[in-house]
Amino acid sequence: MPVAALAFSGGLDTSFAVLALIREGYDVVTVTVDTGGFTPAQLSAIGERARAVGAKRHVAVDARREVFDRFFSHILRGNVLRGGVYPVAVGAERHVQAEHLLKVARAEGASAVAHGSTGAGNDQIRFDVALRALAPDLRLLAPIRAKGVAREESAKALAEKGVRIPAKTTRYSVNAGLVGTTVGGGDTHDPWATIPEEAYEEAGSRLDPDARERELVIGFEKGLPASLDGSPSDPLDLVARIDAMGKPLGIGRGVHLGDTILGIKGRIGFVAPAATVLIAAHRELEKLVLTKRQRDVKDRAGALYGDLLHEGLYLDPVCRDLERLLESSQERVSGEARVRLRRLSCDVLGVRSPHALTAKGARYGEGSSLWDGRDAEGFAKIYGIAARLAEESR
Amino acid sequence: MPVAALAFSGGLDTSFAVLALIREGYDVVTVTVDTGGFTPAQLSAIGERARAVGAKRHVAVDARREVFDRFFSHILRGNVLRGGVYPVAVGAERHVQAEHLLKVARAEGASAVAHGSTGAGNDQIRFDVALRALAPDLRLLAPIRAKGVAREESAKALAEKGVRIPAKTTRYSVNAGLVGTTVGGGDTHDPWATIPEEAYEEAGSRLDPDARERELVIGFEKGLPASLDGSPSDPLDLVARIDAMGKPLGIGRGVHLGDTILGIKGRIGFVAPAATVLIAAHRELEKLVLTKRQRDVKDRAGALYGDLLHEGLYLDPVCRDLERLLESSQERVSGEARVRLRRLSCDVLGVRSPHALTAKGARYGEGSSLWDGRDAEGFAKIYGIAARLAEESR
Amino acid sequence: MPVAALAFSGGLDTSFAVLALIREGYDVVTVTVDTGGFTPAQLSAIGERARAVGAKRHVAVDARREVFDRFFSHILRGNVLRGGVYPVAVGAERHVQAEHLLKVARAEGASAVAHGSTGAGNDQIRFDVALRALAPDLRLLAPIRAKGVAREESAKALAEKGVRIPAKTTRYSVNAGLVGTTVGGGDTHDPWATIPEEAYEEAGSRLDPDARERELVIGFEKGLPASLDGSPSDPLDLVARIDAMGKPLGIGRGVHLGDTILGIKGRIGFVAPAATVLIAAHRELEKLVLTKRQRDVKDRAGALYGDLLHEGLYLDPVCRDLERLLESSQERVSGEARVRLRRLSCDVLGVRSPHALTAKGARYGEGSSLWDGRDAEGFAKIYGIAARLAEESR
Amino acid sequence: MPVAALAFSGGLDTSFAVLALIREGYDVVTVTVDTGGFTPAQLSAIGERARAVGAKRHVAVDARREVFDRFFSHILRGNVLRGGVYPVAVGAERHVQAEHLLKVARAEGASAVAHGSTGAGNDQIRFDVALRALAPDLRLLAPIRAKGVAREESAKALAEKGVRIPAKTTRYSVNAGLVGTTVGGGDTHDPWATIPEEAYEEAGSRLDPDARERELVIGFEKGLPASLDGSPSDPLDLVARIDAMGKPLGIGRGVHLGDTILGIKGRIGFVAPAATVLIAAHRELEKLVLTKRQRDVKDRAGALYGDLLHEGLYLDPVCRDLERLLESSQERVSGEARVRLRRLSCDVLGVRSPHALTAKGARYGEGSSLWDGRDAEGFAKIYGIAARLAEESR
Repeated sequence: MPVAALAFSGGLDTSFAVLALIREGYDVVTVTVDTGGFTPAQLSAIGERARAVGAKRHVAVDARREVFDRFFSHILRGNVLRGGVYPVAVGAERHVQAEHLLKVARAEGASAVAHGSTGAGNDQIRFDVALRALAPDLRLLAPIRAKGVAREESAKALAEKGVRIPAKTTRYSVNAGLVGTTVGGGDTHDPWATIPEEAYEEAGSRLDPDARERELVIGFEKGLPASLDGSPSDPLDLVARIDAMGKPLGIGRGVHLGDTILGIKGRIGFVAPAATVLIAAHRELEKLVLTKRQRDVKDRAGALYGDLLHEGLYLDPVCRDLERLLESSQERVSGEARVRLRRLSCDVLGVRSPHALTAKGARYGEGSSLWDGRDAEGFAKIYGIAARLAEESR
Repeated sequence: MPVAALAFSGGLDTSFAVLALIREGYDVVTVTVDTGGFTPAQLSAIGERARAVGAKRHVAVDARREVFDRFFSHILRGNVLRGGVYPVAVGAERHVQAEHLLKVARAEGASAVAHGSTGAGNDQIRFDVALRALAPDLRLLAPIRAKGVAREESAKALAEKGVRIPAKTTRYSVNAGLVGTTVGGGDTHDPWATIPEEAYEEAGSRLDPDARERELVIGFEKGLPASLDGSPSDPLDLVARIDAMGKPLGIGRGVHLGDTILGIKGRIGFVAPAATVLIAAHRELEKLVLTKRQRDVKDRAGALYGDLLHEGLYLDPVCRDLERLLESSQERVSGEARVRLRRLSCDVLGVRSPHALTAKGARYGEGSSLWDGRDAEGFAKIYGIAARLAEESR
Repeated sequence: MPVAALAFSGGLDTSFAVLALIREGYDVVTVTVDTGGFTPAQLSAIGERARAVGAKRHVAVDARREVFDRFFSHILRGNVLRGGVYPVAVGAERHVQAEHLLKVARAEGASAVAHGSTGAGNDQIRFDVALRALAPDLRLLAPIRAKGVAREESAKALAEKGVRIPAKTTRYSVNAGLVGTTVGGGDTHDPWATIPEEAYEEAGSRLDPDARERELVIGFEKGLPASLDGSPSDPLDLVARIDAMGKPLGIGRGVHLGDTILGIKGRIGFVAPAATVLIAAHRELEKLVLTKRQRDVKDRAGALYGDLLHEGLYLDPVCRDLERLLESSQERVSGEARVRLRRLSCDVLGVRSPHALTAKGARYGEGSSLWDGRDAEGFAKIYGIAARLAEESR
Repeated sequence: MPVAALAFSGGLDTSFAVLALIREGYDVVTVTVDTGGFTPAQLSAIGERARAVGAKRHVAVDARREVFDRFFSHILRGNVLRGGVYPVAVGAERHVQAEHLLKVARAEGASAVAHGSTGAGNDQIRFDVALRALAPDLRLLAPIRAKGVAREESAKALAEKGVRIPAKTTRYSVNAGLVGTTVGGGDTHDPWATIPEEAYEEAGSRLDPDARERELVIGFEKGLPASLDGSPSDPLDLVARIDAMGKPLGIGRGVHLGDTILGIKGRIGFVAPAATVLIAAHRELEKLVLTKRQRDVKDRAGALYGDLLHEGLYLDPVCRDLERLLESSQERVSGEARVRLRRLSCDVLGVRSPHALTAKGARYGEGSSLWDGRDAEGFAKIYGIAARLAEESR
């Protein structure tokens, strides 16, 4: 029998997809790629679910470090915040999942790869683009999308197999990953409605009146976090620790109203304390060590890179070009940022670096050994020539 | 005797500048342009000071509405936040001051215009560029810069004339305007040091534990604020009201570490509640009504416009071109934003507009009458072709 | 019977489309929109063909001036040259055709609109986007694409109706419009092969060894051509005259290798003498009257505008925003350009304008009354501070 | 006696500068850096001149390969053409000269570095920026600028020392380098006047009616020229050969009207056959192998890089960041371009590459195995959604 490898989260859609693929005559290998959103208990439950719905084999892959090294590192270097606020990188996670899905498919001799996305959202596009580009020889199956299967229908079919998954598990649809957690569905869609406290709570951020306000010192080496309060720290660990501190203070919560790949608007809530804090700290450190032109150029590069990741275009080689520019820009981004975490607010209080572009001989507004008043007069005169000529030639 | 018109704030430097100009043989006309930073009492004290130091005539100009209409309106349309945080537009204010200084100079038959800036900061450049471009026929004098006069020296000379201004009035140098107040000098310069609470207090934001947290509804017409909580409001009045609500909550406080025109880094604190709230609300409304490409284009235009204003290049005709683009982009930016003001935080909770680009037939992630699964499959296939070809041709 | 309005060129595909629509039960109204590519004789032959294949009614619309005023004017203002060489604006023409098709459809009470494009190229996308956006209530039909009809099949079906159109009319597919003519198909596709002389000849440019080399003076008013050799000239007439001069000299011929909307590469030859000459002349005039920043900003705006037109996205409101910027930039682009037309080459010899940004008091490299050596020293010192600090802080 | 190292071309200004420095009490070491503009005979004459005017020591440095490897390579990768036409990189050459001047200065224990630029042009800024950044500890001297020395005065002072250099050597001022030759001064300044044939001739391009028209095949490896007509070729040699072919055909001649660092406009003629041909060929090859987004991004990066080089800002670290992006973009830019050189015109006839992004399964406009009509319909539908919603929400 032909083999199909299926990206599997253990939810309603992907569970039903196993049934659908079996019905089409496939032996199904389910593949769960952990990009930071699962506890060990969840991963083990997902494996059991795979077997329960009839998968021949289930493979779990831990891709957390890879997500940091290949994606989040660039997000940080680029200070990527979609719409000025949203640091989460679901597009990156889908791409990693597609790559590991294909690795398993090749190892298992599969002739088809499959995902459980509907035809309504971004994820189908991200999976399709990556899978078709990386494995044009494999069949690509998306059974839920192909047949427009409704959630109630899936639930019923699974129940008949003895697997009970309610059509509405929760009020919200929650998507957790290394960089942060999004919460969508329900009342999050209405752009006028407040995203309720319980939505953020379901995304892991429950306000705790006793949570400790504190100051942190984050050390960066060439743009990446390397220490916390003076002690060297593994980045994954550092992210976990800042997330833990920030969630009960409500730090890194937000609303993202943005453009989907499909051209319509979408709104979600998100919780991303570590990403929010790290980007704020990193951006401030950059202000100290990069030239104005460097920041101009890399800000645009970062924004474009974020868009491309979001839009499923990680494989466009332009992303490699942007990554090289972003890496180069970090050559001198080493130093420390002091951050204060307070209830609902996070401030970068100060930054320092051996590469600070602060003049030894000059302090802004207070005179300088680098120039004198006569130099400044000459500078201003020539600096304003174009404006003067434009005025004269009106 | 030849007449010199001098931009006059009543402080140490401009007061000394009157003496210096008189010594050079000029009749001095002092000109104070109110761009939102003076109380009536302060304006009257400035007039008295002008006479005390020997000005032949003193002229005060109220330019607050002009600052809103010609500058802050574009800052809002463009969501201009320098370094991602700083909405204050000192560059715009200097330009308006230069224009009015020239108007008075012409009316008084002056042969020279003067300012009291030192050679150390941005303001000298802004004044010089505007004055040379708009009045190349007038002599341009900057007595403090020309002679490198120290503050102690000025204080001493003024004291001899019976005018006592201490060389160090306060620990900080505060610059207030319609869009916000900056606080510099002293310990604000060290990028590692925390900007102290008292600096923000001197800039007008004293935290009040009893200050009321609240929700506001701000109405926009073509990108400009037009109503508050449902009642039409004059923009200047609306700005004053939001400033008053925000200051005791600590909203709109921040630190700006950035590049000066002279190429060195500078750091200041700022307090700008209304500008911060209005830009956040406006930006969110835009996310609802503008296409992705519109936001991409106008975000860049706004950032560039902000840089040019800051850098004293308002007269470059490119600013007119950018203003037309920004205005055009606001054609559909009418609607309302709901904002929550809490201690140290301001959130835009929701937005609505008759021009919302939310599909009537589609809700993100939940199916749509605009397309079906087969359409999405075709879209994804063609959308990914360039990535696929790039992968094949490696 | 329901009515379908069909965009009609009289070629094989659109002729067959009439048959197909009739077979589906429609009364067909054929609509031919002249965007500059037809002679009167051709227009009359198209009308006859429409009747021969069974159209109930045929409507011809002269949209040449509209193409100039609404599209080519912006192409000129923006110096739009795709890939740095290609000025032709097929995307603009398709949009105009779609708009007039809809006007006729509404006037005739049609319930469907149709085009004869295949599923292979850009035009289907341009038609679909415009027609769906402007008339979501009408059915959209593309019979050739829907059924994947081959050209031989169409030819045979038409022959049975007594209408003989060979499946291969010519070696090349030629697309003529106001801004220029493209020639595709056959050996133009191979990016290594030379586009043969006869392809350019079929596009209207036959080299004439006796063609007169000459100099022209083109006058511009706010960025648009307004006179030729000193005599005021209607723009359409001016375009026709420069085309006539340029074609026998081989001016404005080129090869365009570029990206299609569908993500694959395409290559065509083109002949566009007037557009090539006008853009070259206009661009040089701009170099004289615009500031550096104006050119930077409008060059990017023009390139983006050209991409959007090409990609069928004229209706994205960002195009309106870009048009306002481009118009504003032309405020001072009045003056003259002197152009020399020689065999295979066109040079702009000189430009002049009352708004030239050439300093009265300065000549580059030869001293100036605007600044002296001491000013220049001060300028250079401060101008280089950021580079110096970056060097110090490595 | 203190030592001053002087950038020395042997012309009037730098010869006089030797006298001026001696008069100020320096031992003068003259440094001539060959960036491609000198014949061996000229270099030897320059050495003699140095001794004649009293230099203690003269050092000549061959920097031609360095100019190619460190500057022209990036100009090519970035297709840098200022104003769309001008490939010459005088800014780069000045920077290399400054670096070698400093090397010699250090080796000779100099306490000062000097150049002979006036206060009127770009070169003084480029020298000043580089010298101050790289050697803030050395005195920087520019005797011609400091004293505003006129050419007649210099000629007279030199004549008194027995060195005869006419104040007006030629009608034009010619500046030759590896990438091309510029010709300025005299009638080139008037933007309305034709740059006369003799100016181009003085820049090395004399039209020869018998010059051979020909086709070349240029091979590129990762964006750099590597072979000519199938034979591997050293880049410097390849540049020399194409220059030799192109000059008698008038290829690569042009007029550049642009913005100087000082804010005024300047106009020059230039002759740059190899650079013009190589950039045209390279750009066409890129159209075949890069994605649309790669070209968009690198086109902007290249334009900015060219501006920064021109404006003396090579040391801003943003240039390093842009270089990394440009290099990365060339990963697949290997292949061949076929170029036809005709009198006054140069056409790229065809390009080929193993990395061509031409679909094996698709030919533009002629059907494809990558998608079908139904896919295209779905694509067009979703692709147009944003435009449709914008239309609906007006």
